[in-house]
Amino acid sequence: MKDFVIIGHKALTAADFSLNDLPGSAGRMDILCRCINSALFLSYGMRRDINVHLVLLGEPDPSKILRFSGEELRYLNPDERSSGSLIKKALEKDATDFETRSTPGVWIRRGGLEELMQEFVEDSRKIYYLREDGEDIRNVTDLAADAVFVLGDHMGVTEEEEGIVNKGSSGTLSIGPLSLHSDHCITIILNELDRFEQSKKN
Amino acid sequence: MKDFVIIGHKALTAADFSLNDLPGSAGRMDILCRCINSALFLSYGMRRDINVHLVLLGEPDPSKILRFSGEELRYLNPDERSSGSLIKKALEKDATDFETRSTPGVWIRRGGLEELMQEFVEDSRKIYYLREDGEDIRNVTDLAADAVFVLGDHMGVTEEEEGIVNKGSSGTLSIGPLSLHSDHCITIILNELDRFEQSKKN
Repeated sequence: MKDFVIIGHKALTAADFSLNDLPGSAGRMDILCRCINSALFLSYGMRRDINVHLVLLGEPDPSKILRFSGEELRYLNPDERSSGSLIKKALEKDATDFETRSTPGVWIRRGGLEELMQEFVEDSRKIYYLREDGEDIRNVTDLAADAVFVLGDHMGVTEEEEGIVNKGSSGTLSIGPLSLHSDHCITIILNELDRFEQSKKN
Repeated sequence: MKDFVIIGHKALTAADFSLNDLPGSAGRMDILCRCINSALFLSYGMRRDINVHLVLLGEPDPSKILRFSGEELRYLNPDERSSGSLIKKALEKDATDFETRSTPGVWIRRGGLEELMQEFVEDSRKIYYLREDGEDIRNVTDLAADAVFVLGDHMGVTEEEEGIVNKGSSGTLSIGPLSLHSDHCITIILNELDRFEQSKKN
């Protein structure tokens, strides 16, 4: 299992947004929708070994964690409205400290980056933080098959969040010479992991 | 300048579709919208050296070519609705054999894959066709900085289209061990080209 964590600094924490305005009234929810697509879709089917964790920090009721589990996911199409609609359905549920399932493969709970990171550390998972000045992912020869990757949104990652991630982090990675959107970074990371797994088979 | 050509087999050739239903009534226009995003967006700004050509083959008035020119493009945001809205505006224009500008950086004309390929061949451009069984892009050491990449949509590329592309093609490329959506392929190709250009500078 691989995990992607994306921090949505303005992403709404209530369901009263319009699917027609994911970038505006939903607090750049479009970014998170595209990350779900990049992390989960193959041409024919879905990446069943991926979890996507969206950390929603926007108004009116922060913070909440939505988990999209590739293993169990249903009713997801590749378009932004489709993932937006599953996010909306999840936000209609009461969020407690324990995960509640809204639709197959989508879970919601109350919590933030700190709790999430703590859990990965307790599970001895390798955590990588994505940053332009990190080590080139192609030079990392021991990328764990169960790695956790943490990415920011259009606002990046704050210094405080960086502190939380770095406490348990195995390193900072970059995916190339240019700074890219988070969903594009996820596509490139997965391509790297696909190639890595393929090379182990050969 | 690099060019991406994406064939939209069902993509509508009239403007009477709803931005709320890009996958359905617009004939999987969502795929083309995501390709525009992948080809043109950087974290801070736009890839100004990219043209995206959408070959629309759907009803009611096929075929038309839309060109998104990174050099001149304005009013484009990363979300699918935003590119969908620029496509819709372009389709409101009368398409002739000559390009008509609808909004800054977006052009429409009548035409199909054959005309487009012929023009690239006349300009002595290197044309690469993306296919799962192609040569691994990482093994190609002479990728031209002004290459043309041809990709299919959810229906792939038909045998007839393959014949047209292969006439002028410099080779068939693959981007990794798994079959991915066209927009994900574009992200990976551009990462490869970014790295290639960076290595030439060092």
